[in-house]
Amino acid sequence: MSSPSRTVVVTGAGGFVGSRLVRRLIEDPAFIDDRLVICDLALAEAGWPDRVRCVRGDFGTPEVLRDLLRDGADVVFHLAGVLGGAAEADPGLARRVNIDATLSLMEALRGLPKPARLVFASSIAVFGPTGRACIDDATPTDPVMLYGAQKRMVEVAIEQAAARGWIDGLSLRLPGIVARPRSSGGLKSGFLSDLFNAWTEGSDIVLPVSPQGTTWLLSVRACVDALVHAAGLPGSLQTPRALTLPALRVEFASIVSALRAVEPTSPSTITFQPEPDIEAQFGRQPALETPFADHLGFRHDGDVQTLVERALEEIPR
Amino acid sequence: MSSPSRTVVVTGAGGFVGSRLVRRLIEDPAFIDDRLVICDLALAEAGWPDRVRCVRGDFGTPEVLRDLLRDGADVVFHLAGVLGGAAEADPGLARRVNIDATLSLMEALRGLPKPARLVFASSIAVFGPTGRACIDDATPTDPVMLYGAQKRMVEVAIEQAAARGWIDGLSLRLPGIVARPRSSGGLKSGFLSDLFNAWTEGSDIVLPVSPQGTTWLLSVRACVDALVHAAGLPGSLQTPRALTLPALRVEFASIVSALRAVEPTSPSTITFQPEPDIEAQFGRQPALETPFADHLGFRHDGDVQTLVERALEEIPR
Repeated sequence: MSSPSRTVVVTGAGGFVGSRLVRRLIEDPAFIDDRLVICDLALAEAGWPDRVRCVRGDFGTPEVLRDLLRDGADVVFHLAGVLGGAAEADPGLARRVNIDATLSLMEALRGLPKPARLVFASSIAVFGPTGRACIDDATPTDPVMLYGAQKRMVEVAIEQAAARGWIDGLSLRLPGIVARPRSSGGLKSGFLSDLFNAWTEGSDIVLPVSPQGTTWLLSVRACVDALVHAAGLPGSLQTPRALTLPALRVEFASIVSALRAVEPTSPSTITFQPEPDIEAQFGRQPALETPFADHLGFRHDGDVQTLVERALEEIPR
Repeated sequence: MSSPSRTVVVTGAGGFVGSRLVRRLIEDPAFIDDRLVICDLALAEAGWPDRVRCVRGDFGTPEVLRDLLRDGADVVFHLAGVLGGAAEADPGLARRVNIDATLSLMEALRGLPKPARLVFASSIAVFGPTGRACIDDATPTDPVMLYGAQKRMVEVAIEQAAARGWIDGLSLRLPGIVARPRSSGGLKSGFLSDLFNAWTEGSDIVLPVSPQGTTWLLSVRACVDALVHAAGLPGSLQTPRALTLPALRVEFASIVSALRAVEPTSPSTITFQPEPDIEAQFGRQPALETPFADHLGFRHDGDVQTLVERALEEIPR
């Protein structure tokens, strides 16, 4: 007999990371016996295996939240959120989704007989531009963007809920994830993904950073690996419950070199026109040390060529 | 001609600190031209000067919040909250008041033509038992109690709102405030105040800490001084917006000695029966350094005798 099946819940299941996580959960043998409950405002109408239940709607409304957790929950991937520029443009909506609805989800999870493993998609936006030479597990948070502050607030709530045994929660601070589709999610860091899109399309692109600028990146494949890995970690973690994920720190010039090496036939022209604001926020990321996450087995893409190959495989052709 | 009058709002105006703050605002010449809008679930029916408007109700409901800010707001003292043991006993209520209603208040303040000075009563509960030899302005927060985590979440929100110029906010981390009335607010630290009450009543008391245990205290008079001082600070502060207030660090034995010196005729017997949990949370407070707050002119009571005298003046006889 197989072990009793679990219920695995995914919010933001229609999003860039969410949709790829759902595909992985459907295909991964480790989740083959599990019921998947996936939620987003919009989800494909058909084509789901029987063990996938789709909940279409806003998880911030009590009825949808009740429906979402109808079968209980052993693992919850909480990816839904209002990010980056979208949060800046509508702070009221950002509060409602990123704080109110998220705390309501946590409150509902608290009512379950066994604490659920909650894997929360936090962000390196909890660190502002620190001016430090290195960010590590001891670096204090100091968010500048609105959604970074909201992610930090939820991290505090999760730390508290985990300490009490209400929720077996883990916050993963995600770096830039590539390659998103063009202009998805209103992210100010959208140029990071647009670069890969432009290269594939053969169109020209102007980057708002300098060639020597540095950024932390993770392919969406490695990001999904990290989320799944977090779901499987033991409950009695001695580390803090908010973990900065390892990420590859790369110069923009070296991404361009790798693009030329991986797909040398692209006719794209890439030029650099640094904008001080963007450069400060996304182009001066210092050295990154993540011993807690490393020790727990989280991994980045390894090298820039692998990162670029994986980023390009996300671009529709 | 006097300067145009301001509108000064106080939430939690019926509470231990709030009621004393309101008395001070009514008597202090610096506030003599101001309109005072005071809010709590219950407030005295009569006896208020004309310039005091009472709003009875829950500031977390949209109607009460609208009424509260009907005249705008130049200064807001936000003291309302579900604290300590009361929060532990009803986490849902604690979330609704400490997070939801507080964020709604902040959202409403954001709509004002000029950013209001928000003085938020945070708490040293944002630090758990740190195990450090000293807590200073660089010590990372690590709350253990639920309301400490919620205070920290609001501090993050205020820091963010202040950086954007939405609200000219300041979070003051209050230490133990003495002497509260017996069993007020469900605070686990209630024994700190019960000691003064017992001494005045002449009743015996068992303290759940050891004589050599140390705690941070501030008289409610010094606390009100700090709140008023915060209201008058200039808007362009370069320090973090969350400030740990200076407090007198005292051994419990030295409080008892001061009580004997100040009121030698009390027949009370004080005995020490340390309880490990309480001792860890309230009886091992390390050295405290608060250069940011010191530089801004915040002051504690100065010495244990003054603290004890001021604490005793709060006890009804």
